[in-house]
Amino acid sequence: MTNPTAAMLVIGDEILSGRTRDANMHHLASELTKLGIDLEEVRFVGDTEAAIESAARALSEAYDHVFTSGGIGPTHDDITAECIARAFGAPIGIRDDARALLVAHYERTGLELNAARLRMARIPEGATLIENPVSTAPGFSLGNVHVMAGIPTIFQAMVASVLPTLTGGAPLLSQSLRVNRGEGEIADTLSQLASDFDDLSVGCYPFQLNGVFGANVVVRGTDGTRIDAAVTRLAAELAL
Amino acid sequence: MTNPTAAMLVIGDEILSGRTRDANMHHLASELTKLGIDLEEVRFVGDTEAAIESAARALSEAYDHVFTSGGIGPTHDDITAECIARAFGAPIGIRDDARALLVAHYERTGLELNAARLRMARIPEGATLIENPVSTAPGFSLGNVHVMAGIPTIFQAMVASVLPTLTGGAPLLSQSLRVNRGEGEIADTLSQLASDFDDLSVGCYPFQLNGVFGANVVVRGTDGTRIDAAVTRLAAELAL
Repeated sequence: MTNPTAAMLVIGDEILSGRTRDANMHHLASELTKLGIDLEEVRFVGDTEAAIESAARALSEAYDHVFTSGGIGPTHDDITAECIARAFGAPIGIRDDARALLVAHYERTGLELNAARLRMARIPEGATLIENPVSTAPGFSLGNVHVMAGIPTIFQAMVASVLPTLTGGAPLLSQSLRVNRGEGEIADTLSQLASDFDDLSVGCYPFQLNGVFGANVVVRGTDGTRIDAAVTRLAAELAL
Repeated sequence: MTNPTAAMLVIGDEILSGRTRDANMHHLASELTKLGIDLEEVRFVGDTEAAIESAARALSEAYDHVFTSGGIGPTHDDITAECIARAFGAPIGIRDDARALLVAHYERTGLELNAARLRMARIPEGATLIENPVSTAPGFSLGNVHVMAGIPTIFQAMVASVLPTLTGGAPLLSQSLRVNRGEGEIADTLSQLASDFDDLSVGCYPFQLNGVFGANVVVRGTDGTRIDAAVTRLAAELAL
């Protein structure tokens, strides 16, 4: 059995200009790994209709699930909902179920549900709402594309809403060994290990700390016993 | 005059599995913005030949420059150089100029230049070396694709080596206003501003801090006087 695959599409000029650091990719990657869904690609694009539409279509065709982040708020640069609707030929407008959520929320908070805020109820036909326990305005799933907010607290809450509805695979397990030697010295040992344990993935991630080069070796797979065996052998060979 | 465009390709399973947070995208984005090169897309792919090759080709065709990060070390999972060579039909092997750099470096440090380390001298025919003042093993530029290391200190040093060789455009200037109101309250004002200053980009980046919603409004463009005018008007309209 192979695991379901996923891609992520992060939308926003502010990240590509270096103004903001994205935090959502790392969160989603960790959550998907726990669930046994393999995140195989992430794309970042700006607030541009053509870029959002073509990336959404390409990723939707290539992977089992696509998760988007950003561009579903009330301002003029929030164009994700329209772009996703257009990418998949779905009509879009203010939907009653989403409007009802906003009406109740703004009544509760005493703020005005103005035209800008009402834009957050634009949901494509046929989409399922994704619950937003932080600030109410929902995300949505249209086909295999899950459209979520960019603010990290809201993104995380929406991920927690949508992931339990998906079927995962075998969770990816891993063990790491920290080696205080340059990776050039352990490359042959690792290469032999990777070929003897070809059901596992053996990654070597070099670091430089206080002028010293070292490497973290990470062995990943779905069979914990095999990972144990590989890491035990590696530690013995490197005499750690 | 429009600015040159760029894309970035980040290579490595460790980021997609959530094990590591990428730091190189944010660095490159900031440096390109200063130079007046517009970063329009970033893709993250795993250590997979097909994914690296097809992303490199697609980005090379679509943008003026492509910057890659990761996968050029000495271990078995470092396959970027081969993939880039194959993507553009260039032969690849140990190149004398790169080997000479490594020979001198390992003589200096007293470490052994073994077969694994010598792999770091594999450079495609026709490529120009990118200097690595941190650990010597060079990156390379093949056509419009600039291939660099993933370790952040080395990546940053290589970026500093290669950017001065590129022709930039008009540096992107920006000013921000922090607004302690939900973006739904200022959306109409921003939308009108964006349409009156259509030579600038007006972005609204909501945040949530201690339970309060606010927004940073960022006005970007290449004409500082126009940005001043837009921000002054916005501050007056919002009575900041």
